[in-house]
Amino acid sequence: MKVVKFGGSSLASGEQLEKVYNIVVSDSERKVVVVSAPGKRYPDDIKVTDLLIACAEHMLETGEAGEYFDAVIQRYSSIARELELGDEIIEIITDSFMQLLADTSKSRDHFIESVKASGEDNNAKLVAAYFQSRGVEASYINPKDAGLFVSDEPGNAQVLPEAYENLYELRKKSGILIFPGFFGYTKEGDIATFSRSGSDITGSIVANGIKAEVYENFTDVDAVYSVNPSIVKNPKEIRELTYREMRELSYAGFSVFHDEALMPAFHAEIPVHVKNTNNPEALGTRIVHQRKNQNGPVVGIASDGGFCSIYVSKYLMNREIGFGRKLLQILEEYHLSYEHLPSGIDDISIILRQDQLNYVLEKDILQRIQTELGADEVKVQHDLSLIMVVGEGMRCNVGTMARAAKALAASGVNIEMINQGSSEVSMMFGVIEADEKKAVKALYEEFFVGVTV
Amino acid sequence: MKVVKFGGSSLASGEQLEKVYNIVVSDSERKVVVVSAPGKRYPDDIKVTDLLIACAEHMLETGEAGEYFDAVIQRYSSIARELELGDEIIEIITDSFMQLLADTSKSRDHFIESVKASGEDNNAKLVAAYFQSRGVEASYINPKDAGLFVSDEPGNAQVLPEAYENLYELRKKSGILIFPGFFGYTKEGDIATFSRSGSDITGSIVANGIKAEVYENFTDVDAVYSVNPSIVKNPKEIRELTYREMRELSYAGFSVFHDEALMPAFHAEIPVHVKNTNNPEALGTRIVHQRKNQNGPVVGIASDGGFCSIYVSKYLMNREIGFGRKLLQILEEYHLSYEHLPSGIDDISIILRQDQLNYVLEKDILQRIQTELGADEVKVQHDLSLIMVVGEGMRCNVGTMARAAKALAASGVNIEMINQGSSEVSMMFGVIEADEKKAVKALYEEFFVGVTV
Repeated sequence: MKVVKFGGSSLASGEQLEKVYNIVVSDSERKVVVVSAPGKRYPDDIKVTDLLIACAEHMLETGEAGEYFDAVIQRYSSIARELELGDEIIEIITDSFMQLLADTSKSRDHFIESVKASGEDNNAKLVAAYFQSRGVEASYINPKDAGLFVSDEPGNAQVLPEAYENLYELRKKSGILIFPGFFGYTKEGDIATFSRSGSDITGSIVANGIKAEVYENFTDVDAVYSVNPSIVKNPKEIRELTYREMRELSYAGFSVFHDEALMPAFHAEIPVHVKNTNNPEALGTRIVHQRKNQNGPVVGIASDGGFCSIYVSKYLMNREIGFGRKLLQILEEYHLSYEHLPSGIDDISIILRQDQLNYVLEKDILQRIQTELGADEVKVQHDLSLIMVVGEGMRCNVGTMARAAKALAASGVNIEMINQGSSEVSMMFGVIEADEKKAVKALYEEFFVGVTV
Repeated sequence: MKVVKFGGSSLASGEQLEKVYNIVVSDSERKVVVVSAPGKRYPDDIKVTDLLIACAEHMLETGEAGEYFDAVIQRYSSIARELELGDEIIEIITDSFMQLLADTSKSRDHFIESVKASGEDNNAKLVAAYFQSRGVEASYINPKDAGLFVSDEPGNAQVLPEAYENLYELRKKSGILIFPGFFGYTKEGDIATFSRSGSDITGSIVANGIKAEVYENFTDVDAVYSVNPSIVKNPKEIRELTYREMRELSYAGFSVFHDEALMPAFHAEIPVHVKNTNNPEALGTRIVHQRKNQNGPVVGIASDGGFCSIYVSKYLMNREIGFGRKLLQILEEYHLSYEHLPSGIDDISIILRQDQLNYVLEKDILQRIQTELGADEVKVQHDLSLIMVVGEGMRCNVGTMARAAKALAASGVNIEMINQGSSEVSMMFGVIEADEKKAVKALYEEFFVGVTV
């Protein structure tokens, strides 16, 4: 039994829905289809979700939905027309959308949530109607009926443990089940949406719930690349990577999945298969719990800029029990999250994303560290990039660090910082932002192309 | 104006005192001579300080000093006889020692402190008498008269800030001043000793107090070596190293100075010159604030075993503000001090000296981390060695890491862990203990001998 999730661009038009249908019916194991709202058909197009947000806000301001109402309905109508579905489904969608907008009993937050979520909800109804029109048994599943209960945190809903048991019951239903992504219901019956990439989260939750053998995630790329294609042209595709590898890669710029999206699938040890709706023959990338090590120690290289380093030194720091804890306490009071804590004997550096800071905050924090911890020196280095070199094969491979460091040195990149040894599957290098691309290219050459000059 | 400190082995016999005398008078800038108690004359000899501790304990148990009294006096007498000093100085020492032992007004702690400190105190009197007998102006200085006030922490006294101002007055005294090391006086007039290597601390405090141009520390080695001579035969001597470099080296096995000993000299930016009493012509090693970079990026390599690593992993750890702080809080509650905190995106490792742990404690801590932090996995790796590669020149030298990693890889050593980037003057490698010597040799070959095979 498989859960298949399709992103917005896979559902933007009738032509796309046809591809989706063909993909789903080509494998009888594809049981639950999780759908996003219709996405962009062309670069300047507007996503249905964005129309809905504008609609909800306009409604709250003026009491009227205005032009947004028509714009939303037209997107569904145009898909329905393309697929020759007849008027019935559009009437259903229109009625339900009007009812939703007319409901003034909800709080402001819950109203916006319901309107946003209707993009996926109505699209699921549309897709179910289309599948039925093609003659297969298919039905729309309402997340409330399916028991997908979540916490009452609008825009950041967390799945409640009981939801998994409820969803397991979907296995008993016959036919293909079309499930709207992005939201669940609170125990009070209100709609609450997940955070960014919410449909990925729904797919992951449903895969866990029905104990799927695989969670197929269809998007618009053939595979996950081993390095950012804007830095290295035509990079190698990754066939298989582990959850750990994906997490380490996603850290520094790889945005295959939103951090939390795969958590439910991860916990149920369900493999995730990333595939391309527009090229379903492509092998895609499988994210698995364990993989056999193949093709050298490195599976991917990711990088991201915008980090800074707060350096703190104090003579005899290592003798002072509690120094590190007090330092982290100060950061915590400012709600700052840090990435790494490299340390020497008398110094420690805190690596964090610099967009969390501003001039005033930074001055304030440095002052507190100086005063409260009696530091000899406190200073900040801005504009650092972190590069993650990731691979399960790294651990058993004496010399991977030597190769990486040599490649960087040969390309004239100075290593500001190395963090290696906690994770068994990654090495992290800190470089100045200006060196980031040069460094990534050098590492790619070394580990993917072959011997560098 | 210089402060010169001599260790116990430099003052163990009349022959040694003659060397001390010749060294001091050969440079008229040598103003204050800080002395230890007489040390060992031969490997199986007993240090006077150890005799004194035994004496004090015997006294407290039995009310009598017994054989220890004579043993102590005999050490001084034998030196005095060797130097043909006459009976007067031994009578002074004997009387003062008897008075000390007879004084029952002190608390147990303060009694032991006074008896321990008498080793240095009486030796300072003896050395002053000897210098006078050679016809130079020299006088014994009592730390109380000189205003060396300390906190009332027996065995771990901390100098009080006012002491420095008091000691500055020593500049006005004429002749050579013989100052006993190892102890000061509390404001209540009690003796309190410093921690281990207490005479080094006294020298450092006096050097700060009188604003010495240099603090000469005479011991029994020609210089600080660039690597442990028990690992590499006849290693290169270090001519000059900075305080920071020394601190980084002292961390992993280099025991030139006790950690705290140089703090007062460090704060006053006074260079420390390590020299050999038995070979004063040798150039020794200078510890300075800044040095010109010479002879490659690395100045020394140190290593030490007995570390362990506590590995903690949790999916999405980096999203959890406060995770690191809570982890350190648990360690702090057990009074554990850690060395490093390498981290991945979903994991963090704590490197600490394993002699702080035992089976029960370890189990307890792992349990708490698992339960209180909801970690997915917690495990311990024992028997790790840390290797510090230290040098001020490292920062500006692209490729130092590549050379180090390559040397380790070529010798078949797997790098368990790297910590580099906070300190500008060191790289740290973690290896399994069994690989420590091999790794140090390979790094020494690379950075000190020349190109390795």
